[in-house]
Amino acid sequence: MGKVKEQGLAVGLLGCGTVGRGLVKLLSQNRQLVQARVGAPLFLAKVADTNPAAFEGLELDSSQKTGDALSIVDDPRIPVIVELIGGQGVAKDLMLRALGNGKTVVTANKALLATWGRDILEAARKGGGELFFEAAVGGCMPVIKTLRETLAGNRILALYGILNGTCNYILSRITFENLSFEDALQKAQEAGFAEADPFLDISGGDTRHKLALCVSLAFGTPVGLEDIFVEGISHLTPDDIAFAQEFGYRVKLLAIAKRTGNAVQARVHPTMIPMYNMLSNVSGPMNALTLVGDACGEVVLYGQGAGMMPTASAVVSDLADAARNLLCGAHNRIPIMGWQERDISPLPILPMDEVVTRYYIRLAALDRPGVLSKVAGVLGDNGISISSVHQKGRHIEGPVPIVLLTHDAKESNIQKALKEIAALAVIAADPVLIRIEEEDETA
Amino acid sequence: MGKVKEQGLAVGLLGCGTVGRGLVKLLSQNRQLVQARVGAPLFLAKVADTNPAAFEGLELDSSQKTGDALSIVDDPRIPVIVELIGGQGVAKDLMLRALGNGKTVVTANKALLATWGRDILEAARKGGGELFFEAAVGGCMPVIKTLRETLAGNRILALYGILNGTCNYILSRITFENLSFEDALQKAQEAGFAEADPFLDISGGDTRHKLALCVSLAFGTPVGLEDIFVEGISHLTPDDIAFAQEFGYRVKLLAIAKRTGNAVQARVHPTMIPMYNMLSNVSGPMNALTLVGDACGEVVLYGQGAGMMPTASAVVSDLADAARNLLCGAHNRIPIMGWQERDISPLPILPMDEVVTRYYIRLAALDRPGVLSKVAGVLGDNGISISSVHQKGRHIEGPVPIVLLTHDAKESNIQKALKEIAALAVIAADPVLIRIEEEDETA
Repeated sequence: MGKVKEQGLAVGLLGCGTVGRGLVKLLSQNRQLVQARVGAPLFLAKVADTNPAAFEGLELDSSQKTGDALSIVDDPRIPVIVELIGGQGVAKDLMLRALGNGKTVVTANKALLATWGRDILEAARKGGGELFFEAAVGGCMPVIKTLRETLAGNRILALYGILNGTCNYILSRITFENLSFEDALQKAQEAGFAEADPFLDISGGDTRHKLALCVSLAFGTPVGLEDIFVEGISHLTPDDIAFAQEFGYRVKLLAIAKRTGNAVQARVHPTMIPMYNMLSNVSGPMNALTLVGDACGEVVLYGQGAGMMPTASAVVSDLADAARNLLCGAHNRIPIMGWQERDISPLPILPMDEVVTRYYIRLAALDRPGVLSKVAGVLGDNGISISSVHQKGRHIEGPVPIVLLTHDAKESNIQKALKEIAALAVIAADPVLIRIEEEDETA
Repeated sequence: MGKVKEQGLAVGLLGCGTVGRGLVKLLSQNRQLVQARVGAPLFLAKVADTNPAAFEGLELDSSQKTGDALSIVDDPRIPVIVELIGGQGVAKDLMLRALGNGKTVVTANKALLATWGRDILEAARKGGGELFFEAAVGGCMPVIKTLRETLAGNRILALYGILNGTCNYILSRITFENLSFEDALQKAQEAGFAEADPFLDISGGDTRHKLALCVSLAFGTPVGLEDIFVEGISHLTPDDIAFAQEFGYRVKLLAIAKRTGNAVQARVHPTMIPMYNMLSNVSGPMNALTLVGDACGEVVLYGQGAGMMPTASAVVSDLADAARNLLCGAHNRIPIMGWQERDISPLPILPMDEVVTRYYIRLAALDRPGVLSKVAGVLGDNGISISSVHQKGRHIEGPVPIVLLTHDAKESNIQKALKEIAALAVIAADPVLIRIEEEDETA
């Protein structure tokens, strides 16, 4: 420990892409400040990237740069590894090896953690090293720290997150500029808020990775990705978003998890939330997370969920924690997933079919008498009651849109009813469904 | 350490008022959960209150209850003391004694910390104990943890806080119901959101205590209460708040701190902020804090800033940290004020006269020709330029209200100009001033 205090903490960085470059810059720019907070200097002993161009313009001397990540992971003089390669290929092998070598690992890799969590936790347990991943969820917002530490006295009842900036940017442009999904996606790509291949973001897959981590931390239960229902945003139309606004709602891609009896529900889908909800005002690429605890009530975190410097900020937060633990010999001060291993036991995940919530349904109906009574009949037969109906004419040619909001209903009943409605002769296209969340009811 | 792990962590509670009772309830209700997170049970060894009625209805046996707080502070079997007496009298003596005895202290007492911080830190340093105070600012929101830990890699540029639920509740009722300040205060008292003697809240004094703590944590500088400008909310009228809304602003009592060159500005006053700002949507008794760092950009925290269970939630967060440190021998893992003592050096606090911002000014003018040219002349002579002028007639009899918004101007110039304007024969009453904050310019 004395050695760390004098010589500083040697950090090895794997991957010098956008966030890696941000980390190099931040540790250089705020070197004094970080030392004043942590009590010892943090320095980048080695930075690995297979592409030498990645180092261009960075204040690194040749002894720091390498193309060989494995040499860093196996270097006994480097106790802390930052993994910013991403993906589930080489990043996985290197992370497992670093943990196997007993090192502390800091990562932003939610896909890897959500998919291979069991193996990674096992490697950390065997190696005795620590694992930090504040940068994996919500960028610079203290999502992991708030779940692992701040809410330690709370039984978490629910969480609601806008955890993907690409989707939120696209939905904001559709909302405020009445763009089609395709146009909004293109604008997002032009503005640098969407990848050339946006599938992982717009499908909800990235949000699902993050939700899986939040569920484990919040409820102390492991959760498989396959247990989390996911629906993306590419089918949303500006009309549906405008109709939602008329009812007083915004549409957001939400990660939702709740306690329901002794089970946990976990799902990702476009969601209508009331305008007055704090999450409704989260626009553009920003992220936010509402946590509901039995003592604290609602706590909301808001900030930049991605990007070079915000993500680097989260990595340094973890490095500071890692350094503080090494400095005072406080190894594994907090369990990686926030709960003592003996207290982690799988909770059942509620099947999506059994989720109960409110629904927005839009139908394209032929303008004939009796349509509404037929539709209402099908809903009634399936035990679904309607809270309001609006026949709409705006912006649409051909069939008349009918918009229905339901009271609480069961997902399986809704799906069955929608199939029956779609089969009616008076219905011209597949019904559109958006789930509604009235967060205050849960809090 | 082994002993703590097996037998649990003995906690002594001083003061069994609202928050104290909340803590007793929370530790009982979530006993298993807290143990599963921390790795050892936390138990209340002793609870002290001079009023025996304070214990009524709580699950405490007679061996736990005492009227003698000093006996807890001096009990060598109790390593952790929670001070929830409040105020600067007996609470101060007990806290200093507990720290002198080498104990870890958890407190919610912002007044005590902001006023006697130097003595308290000195006692902690000498005794070797730790001091935690998450509950002192922003109730259940992780304000202290975010400043001390999450933003460790950031140079903090600014912070903006709604840190007093009483004031925010009153301002919300004036805003949405057009009430007078007096009526809104009465409603707040009836709803339990204001004390019988509301002075400390409505004067901005409580917010100033909290800001002093935030400034120390954010900028690594001690700050005296006398260095923080403070103006309360009791002079605000529904008309001014309505005019502000017409210009696209909400009025909030804000705690503001910013880096300005090598100095820090720190002030508490009613502030007009744009409607689109996240803080504008913080209504009722809720609190929120925007932190701006050079890497993270804006991070916003939102939650209940007071109340029995939210405050108890923050106390348990600190107890969990204290327990984790004791369990792994990680004493003083993080400096109390977030910076290594050798790196804390006083930064100059910018005098209020030198603050530069935008201003809203309302004048009560006699309806005569040439009034505006006289007013504009005085402003111009003092180097103040006007960004917009509106002559108002709404809801007001007698003199005509003239509302002016200025461009950036210096506080000393504004104060001089207002004195000269007040002395004009055509001005019927003292001008009203509200400072404007366009947060985005700083971020």
